[in-house]
Amino acid sequence: MDEFELIRQYFTRASAGSGVRVGVGDDGAVMRPEEGRDLVAVVDTLVEGVHYPENLSATDIGYRAVAVNLSDIAAMAGRPRWMTLALTLRVADRHWLADFSKGLFTAADEHGVSLVGGDTTRGEQTVISVQITGDIDPDLVLTRSGAGPGDLIYVSGSPGDAAAGLHLLEKNSLGSESARKLADKFRHPVARIELAQKIAPLASAAIDVSDGLYADLQKLLLASSMSGQIELNTLPLSAEITAQFDSEAARRFSLGGGDDYELCFTLAAENEALLDDAIRGAGVNVTRIGIVDEGHGLACTNNGIAFDYVDNGYLHFGGSGE
Amino acid sequence: MDEFELIRQYFTRASAGSGVRVGVGDDGAVMRPEEGRDLVAVVDTLVEGVHYPENLSATDIGYRAVAVNLSDIAAMAGRPRWMTLALTLRVADRHWLADFSKGLFTAADEHGVSLVGGDTTRGEQTVISVQITGDIDPDLVLTRSGAGPGDLIYVSGSPGDAAAGLHLLEKNSLGSESARKLADKFRHPVARIELAQKIAPLASAAIDVSDGLYADLQKLLLASSMSGQIELNTLPLSAEITAQFDSEAARRFSLGGGDDYELCFTLAAENEALLDDAIRGAGVNVTRIGIVDEGHGLACTNNGIAFDYVDNGYLHFGGSGE
Repeated sequence: MDEFELIRQYFTRASAGSGVRVGVGDDGAVMRPEEGRDLVAVVDTLVEGVHYPENLSATDIGYRAVAVNLSDIAAMAGRPRWMTLALTLRVADRHWLADFSKGLFTAADEHGVSLVGGDTTRGEQTVISVQITGDIDPDLVLTRSGAGPGDLIYVSGSPGDAAAGLHLLEKNSLGSESARKLADKFRHPVARIELAQKIAPLASAAIDVSDGLYADLQKLLLASSMSGQIELNTLPLSAEITAQFDSEAARRFSLGGGDDYELCFTLAAENEALLDDAIRGAGVNVTRIGIVDEGHGLACTNNGIAFDYVDNGYLHFGGSGE
Repeated sequence: MDEFELIRQYFTRASAGSGVRVGVGDDGAVMRPEEGRDLVAVVDTLVEGVHYPENLSATDIGYRAVAVNLSDIAAMAGRPRWMTLALTLRVADRHWLADFSKGLFTAADEHGVSLVGGDTTRGEQTVISVQITGDIDPDLVLTRSGAGPGDLIYVSGSPGDAAAGLHLLEKNSLGSESARKLADKFRHPVARIELAQKIAPLASAAIDVSDGLYADLQKLLLASSMSGQIELNTLPLSAEITAQFDSEAARRFSLGGGDDYELCFTLAAENEALLDDAIRGAGVNVTRIGIVDEGHGLACTNNGIAFDYVDNGYLHFGGSGE
């Protein structure tokens, strides 16, 4: 068995998957789209040493490679269906491939996504690009650009936990339960697929938080040609982050850390009363943190008093994707 | 303007493209599929120093990155429509990006393909993954697995020219017209999109020649659970390769060189008479080189006498893709 076959065996499964007519193994994959649905496509790359620390397990790397893409599908309110994998490896290591593919398929299976194609190449550094195609209700596409004046700004979960967890992971400070819980948030981010579909009929705009809440909310406001204001005291902080860090550090993680892949969205004020019912069963809470206005820029208040926040969050070279 | 913006400007165009509802710039792209068509998806990666020599221009790299994917779409008889780009760069160089994007869009525009999304990351080596989604007539999907006993084996163009051209390019031996023509075959491979659609109603199986005619025909036969025999004297050799190399070297390039991305396909014998009419206007000739039979393996004859060909063609680490 040559290396081609060695690698292929880890990514080939008995069932091609839902809607797949030709799966892995031919020149291309053939899939049948569902009538009346539009397609949604995303791509995101993880580079060894840039997007994950060296001590992250191959299983966790595989999981994250899929999860970050699922998050982009979620931000559009799409339903993920099929993925391709472009994998550049230094060596073809059986154990690494077994673990990596396990993590990859775990994340994919959680949302019924089939791997339909791939390309494996040799390089000097591990580079993992996953591309996911999903489908979407044409009338419920959620973009960054729909926010209007007076809309309320919401965020799901407690962003910052994963960045705090990564910080602890890099320092190997995982001695306590709360530290391990934070690290798990980095290792297994949960894409907000269900939440996004539930809020899509109510929300005016959405973005997934990949570069940090402050930076990504800025992008949403820019795309909507609006300004915004957030109240720092309303930022949702988890019990774990509060246990591990002082309030200043926790706030920095909350505003600057994007590795949780939570959803930030806006909502016309008249829809606020419908939100609780809409998100029932989504498996995550949402918190109102601010308001949209005319103009441009994103201002912060702290207990109602203007606060000059300087974002020095995660800004890697071009890593934001689309 | 930060690096994100610098890079984005090279890949953003005024028109989103055909069937594109949301293009580059949001979390994901939204496309409208055509009713009654299936989807076809492919992905292929070029790694600096592995898949192209250092002296290949950025324009040519961009062109090839798209063309190799178009070729996989062609091999299924699909029509390419939308692509995403995952680009890992050592540095964000304006000139390189300008040239690379020029080549990328040239290849895409030749087939009406729109860039709908991307992700740019920093790494130690340039890695370019292009993923293309197309559509396809559900009744005319061309796989590797449909060849039957007695089917005739055909190949388009004159495979080997591009590998010969790469050889000359690497040696910097481009002094003659014929050498430059061969190098151009490497720099600008033409995906056989039109040819594939024209032969799809007649052909039983197809593969694009990316790893070499002998190796790829073997894959087609394996997928079809068939054997095959090719006559070396029928291999189509260009005037240019004959001018530059002796017949032994030319034959090695022809059987082992995959960089032209020609199409190899099989055809029931009763369809042979229809072929000339079918491929009119496809812009390329096809040549009958052999025959399919029961059993397994691929044998060669030279003027009808058994010839023991040992394939030592291009076999890089896992680089065949799907």
